[in-house]
Amino acid sequence: MKKIEVAILGATGTVGQKLVALLESHPWFSIAELVASERSAGGPYDKVCHWRENIPLSPSVAALKVKNTDSPLNSLLLFSGLDSSVAGPLEERYAHQGHVVISNSKNHRMDSDVPLVIPEINASHLVLARSQPYRGAIITNANCSSIFLTMALAPLHQALQVKKVMVTTMQAISGAGYPGVPSLDILGNVIPHIAGEEEKIAQEPLKILGTLDGKSISPANFPISVQCNRVPVLDGHTESISIAFAHHTSAAQVKELLQGFRGEIAEMKLPSAPAAPLIVLEDINRPQSRDVHRAQGMSAIVGRIRACPVLDVRLVVLGHNTIRGAAGAAILNAELFHQLGMLDEYRL
Amino acid sequence: MKKIEVAILGATGTVGQKLVALLESHPWFSIAELVASERSAGGPYDKVCHWRENIPLSPSVAALKVKNTDSPLNSLLLFSGLDSSVAGPLEERYAHQGHVVISNSKNHRMDSDVPLVIPEINASHLVLARSQPYRGAIITNANCSSIFLTMALAPLHQALQVKKVMVTTMQAISGAGYPGVPSLDILGNVIPHIAGEEEKIAQEPLKILGTLDGKSISPANFPISVQCNRVPVLDGHTESISIAFAHHTSAAQVKELLQGFRGEIAEMKLPSAPAAPLIVLEDINRPQSRDVHRAQGMSAIVGRIRACPVLDVRLVVLGHNTIRGAAGAAILNAELFHQLGMLDEYRL
Amino acid sequence: MKKIEVAILGATGTVGQKLVALLESHPWFSIAELVASERSAGGPYDKVCHWRENIPLSPSVAALKVKNTDSPLNSLLLFSGLDSSVAGPLEERYAHQGHVVISNSKNHRMDSDVPLVIPEINASHLVLARSQPYRGAIITNANCSSIFLTMALAPLHQALQVKKVMVTTMQAISGAGYPGVPSLDILGNVIPHIAGEEEKIAQEPLKILGTLDGKSISPANFPISVQCNRVPVLDGHTESISIAFAHHTSAAQVKELLQGFRGEIAEMKLPSAPAAPLIVLEDINRPQSRDVHRAQGMSAIVGRIRACPVLDVRLVVLGHNTIRGAAGAAILNAELFHQLGMLDEYRL
Amino acid sequence: MKKIEVAILGATGTVGQKLVALLESHPWFSIAELVASERSAGGPYDKVCHWRENIPLSPSVAALKVKNTDSPLNSLLLFSGLDSSVAGPLEERYAHQGHVVISNSKNHRMDSDVPLVIPEINASHLVLARSQPYRGAIITNANCSSIFLTMALAPLHQALQVKKVMVTTMQAISGAGYPGVPSLDILGNVIPHIAGEEEKIAQEPLKILGTLDGKSISPANFPISVQCNRVPVLDGHTESISIAFAHHTSAAQVKELLQGFRGEIAEMKLPSAPAAPLIVLEDINRPQSRDVHRAQGMSAIVGRIRACPVLDVRLVVLGHNTIRGAAGAAILNAELFHQLGMLDEYRL
Repeated sequence: MKKIEVAILGATGTVGQKLVALLESHPWFSIAELVASERSAGGPYDKVCHWRENIPLSPSVAALKVKNTDSPLNSLLLFSGLDSSVAGPLEERYAHQGHVVISNSKNHRMDSDVPLVIPEINASHLVLARSQPYRGAIITNANCSSIFLTMALAPLHQALQVKKVMVTTMQAISGAGYPGVPSLDILGNVIPHIAGEEEKIAQEPLKILGTLDGKSISPANFPISVQCNRVPVLDGHTESISIAFAHHTSAAQVKELLQGFRGEIAEMKLPSAPAAPLIVLEDINRPQSRDVHRAQGMSAIVGRIRACPVLDVRLVVLGHNTIRGAAGAAILNAELFHQLGMLDEYRL
Repeated sequence: MKKIEVAILGATGTVGQKLVALLESHPWFSIAELVASERSAGGPYDKVCHWRENIPLSPSVAALKVKNTDSPLNSLLLFSGLDSSVAGPLEERYAHQGHVVISNSKNHRMDSDVPLVIPEINASHLVLARSQPYRGAIITNANCSSIFLTMALAPLHQALQVKKVMVTTMQAISGAGYPGVPSLDILGNVIPHIAGEEEKIAQEPLKILGTLDGKSISPANFPISVQCNRVPVLDGHTESISIAFAHHTSAAQVKELLQGFRGEIAEMKLPSAPAAPLIVLEDINRPQSRDVHRAQGMSAIVGRIRACPVLDVRLVVLGHNTIRGAAGAAILNAELFHQLGMLDEYRL
Repeated sequence: MKKIEVAILGATGTVGQKLVALLESHPWFSIAELVASERSAGGPYDKVCHWRENIPLSPSVAALKVKNTDSPLNSLLLFSGLDSSVAGPLEERYAHQGHVVISNSKNHRMDSDVPLVIPEINASHLVLARSQPYRGAIITNANCSSIFLTMALAPLHQALQVKKVMVTTMQAISGAGYPGVPSLDILGNVIPHIAGEEEKIAQEPLKILGTLDGKSISPANFPISVQCNRVPVLDGHTESISIAFAHHTSAAQVKELLQGFRGEIAEMKLPSAPAAPLIVLEDINRPQSRDVHRAQGMSAIVGRIRACPVLDVRLVVLGHNTIRGAAGAAILNAELFHQLGMLDEYRL
Repeated sequence: MKKIEVAILGATGTVGQKLVALLESHPWFSIAELVASERSAGGPYDKVCHWRENIPLSPSVAALKVKNTDSPLNSLLLFSGLDSSVAGPLEERYAHQGHVVISNSKNHRMDSDVPLVIPEINASHLVLARSQPYRGAIITNANCSSIFLTMALAPLHQALQVKKVMVTTMQAISGAGYPGVPSLDILGNVIPHIAGEEEKIAQEPLKILGTLDGKSISPANFPISVQCNRVPVLDGHTESISIAFAHHTSAAQVKELLQGFRGEIAEMKLPSAPAAPLIVLEDINRPQSRDVHRAQGMSAIVGRIRACPVLDVRLVVLGHNTIRGAAGAAILNAELFHQLGMLDEYRL
């Protein structure tokens, strides 16, 4: 099979580099174009990019001349790791030009006609793309902490109807990009605030767990209280979660539902889909940040499922914030969009 | 004024060392005896103890010959940093012998006739000591995380009646003593479990906030849901807290109550009492673990007071786990006991 | 090809676990027996071992009943990760019983008839084994920091004759095993001493770089000055090295020699041998501990090659202390021993 | 005594803030003016400065309106924590205007008429100031790592004549200022390079240990080989040092010389001078970064003094990089300059 040529927007940034690393050996997609801001554009990728991923760059990608955001692109499919300060209008412009933009940026996530998708949970929301005013389309994934929380909530909401959620996050420094958090601020320290984060986590899961109602989404309707902390961990966001349900349940039933969750794409053989979207660990002191590399960073890892004396059930969720929480999430969305045949609806 | 001679039990352990460090220059108390297990006893303190505090030992304390737990003690007042594996029967024996044991150990905290005291909150509970079956007495302080949580809850419970509490802790490694947490377990990691901790934090605040009813305590009656995490921080436990109240309130009122809290001992001039039991910080990203040395580690530091969409109000509390959370708490209890004249009721 | 069944001694320790992890999918060797101290023996491996490696245990290894050190073993080939407090007599006993013991322990490294081998450098030393008084044999690898230093010195010593070496190490916590270094000792700290380490690093490279003289080794003859530091890094020992040579040279020539080094086993296709024993990085701020996973942790990584105003040339070397520095070193030794046909000289 | 009013240049930077913190309660100097770049100037200090020191700002300093670098200054004595990108011409301009500039910046350190001073070692070099072409003067202190190294070398050079020095540094992140080192670069990592650092440490000690020859300094004449590393430590630079001497010596003699060192200012009662410039620790695993707060961060702390098989004697030195290594060094220089009566030679 001939691979589909793709472009990566914001290719020199943290998410952009992770997209490059994950797409380097992708079975369906092939990196054909790299795009960065005017400041980085013009030279070969390995010269203009301060590469920080652990795997070495392949020679062909290293040699790709980086385009600026004004250059016309030949690839139908674009992955966007653009900074949110510029992603809004740029992604719209590419979509108007006919491109399908698979975006990790926050800018269009809550647009009523933009799908905010976790493939295992709400693949059906992708049809929203057909209502967009673009020749192309914009498809988004959620904020990293939103994704892990929603993956744990999804099977529970379906079976038991979630009524209330309390979550305290302990988030890794890689979530802030590069240079991101100064070491003087975080070495041996906890910072109890991350700008804009609590708002996203309180809102995005409701759209993802919402129901498709003709051409729009009716969001799920329950309050999510979020307290975010930055901790001195490299990769992996941990969340202490407590949930109240409309239907009576037990920790044992919650555990069974989480263990049994396979999701809507279980049979689709998407290359980046993990064997199980949720991995439930039994040890009383798991999941730890150390577990973050399980399943190539594409599963959410759950543990400590137990009754809660205030709401109903408590648990801990861990996810790889730059893989399943960002670049890997975008790639899985693209795989789904293509496998459903929807990418074929578009042409440059 | 002649200083009161005191003994320190478990003097070579982590809490014992902090007791020594804090009592070295205490205006009322003078270290006269140091007691450790058979293994450490016999030699001068600086030889048998692997001193890890940052301040140097004074020559007189360094030269004190460490006694074992079978030796009779001359000091009426004992500070106990004994390990919980031995503290239960040993503290009882000392109390039977007529000593007043100011204990940081968990063993007797929940005994119905043992005061569990935070001086600013429930000084009156000390009278329980008079009902004890000992010639002497046992006075206890709470678990470190319990103390910081209760200090924040106290003025709110009094004014607004607490109905429900959710708390997620991020606890420093010094809370586990020495050698404590292996570095391989915690460097760059979060561990979502601390053995026995969640149970204590769910229970101890209720006794402290309880009301004295003749010779016993009627504990406060509300559920506390606790999720504990160990984080790679040296000193300072951070707690993300959410609270529901019986009476309608606002974040602004909660802030005002916390800022105004002075507690029952405000006029007593206890040497270790902080100017204010609670310090409220305004910056959106405080308190951070870095703030832990404020007020000599004796205040609880509060920030991020804001409404909660699930319960009523959320906030973050930080405290110094080995000072206000352990050794400093014990010393403040002893100061209170003495200042109230209760120590004079006992004689060896 | 039928795999060779092997046993792992000290299988529940840190090196033992890494041996298990690396041998789980080895093309030549198959884990048939696991041996531990009396305390851990008796149960299935996954029950008696607190598994800390990142990859999950295979069911067959997890179910292996752990033998104690008194049990007779069926495997000819034993890998020893035994603690040095017991390795001395135990390894001898196994060798007397006819086993070939591939040991990572320090106890027999400097025995005159025991090969201390880095396959790329001194494979020929293996013939020492034939002079041993055992029916079996003992083969050893060096201390982790010794290995990385020696790998960098080998091609230089051969071409330019090393006269003096100064090295300062910055060593990861995993080098101390588990529980190893308490987190209170190392979080945000540097400890300028590691017990016994400087002596080993000053001595072992000389034996490895020595020449085989009939039935004994004439060690290389130059002083090595070592200063060891423990740093808060998980995996990867970094060494700042300066070297004086008998022959005039330049940083450029040293770089060329290091880049060109392939070693004695380049054509032998040993499964664990890296493509190049040395990887030379060009960036002025490499190698960093972060680079430690390159080449599956089996190469030493070199950088910052430059002239030294006191000796001749300076450079920085990094190696993975628990892979190339311990378990991987032992496995590579076993592969070499087998590939040379020497294992066939032994029979139980 | 009326305090001398001083100004702080670069007052919002890392060194500037430390200068403010240390001068807040200085017995001789009083902060009268704060100067920052155009970007920060104009507002009160606590509004334009993101204060990161642990002690709270006094209200009077907090309210000082920050001046820009074009404003004329009323204080004769200026402390400069200016960034090296601007310090060169600015410090010259202030000196031409008649100010005495006590500078921590690197720009003028090696100027032949600028004293580079460690008071305990080369107070006499201050007379160089009289040869400067300014109405005022520029006085400098060395790079942090240079200072600690030179403090250890000084008594040895005087008694034994140093011939060669090898040093490997392990430097704290606070040495890079703020925001400085990104946490993604240093958490759990060692970086074997710090831009420009090795050159300074190889050169500055020679000027400080040089001899005053009429109106110029004849620098000491021995090679210093430096390898710098950044490690994940908050405060405190550790240096592994090896030294060769012209005169035969022993580790014991070196230790005695270091312990006995008092320096040229021992009797001058300078407020910031430590009781002893060098503290020698006996424990085999000291000094550790943790020891950095000893003597208010103004002493260099030495340990592990032992013979070296390549040069003569090895040792480990630790110093507080932002106190004795920067702001405290500048303040001590100013105290010396004033106590010697030299400040009285200048007038605005």
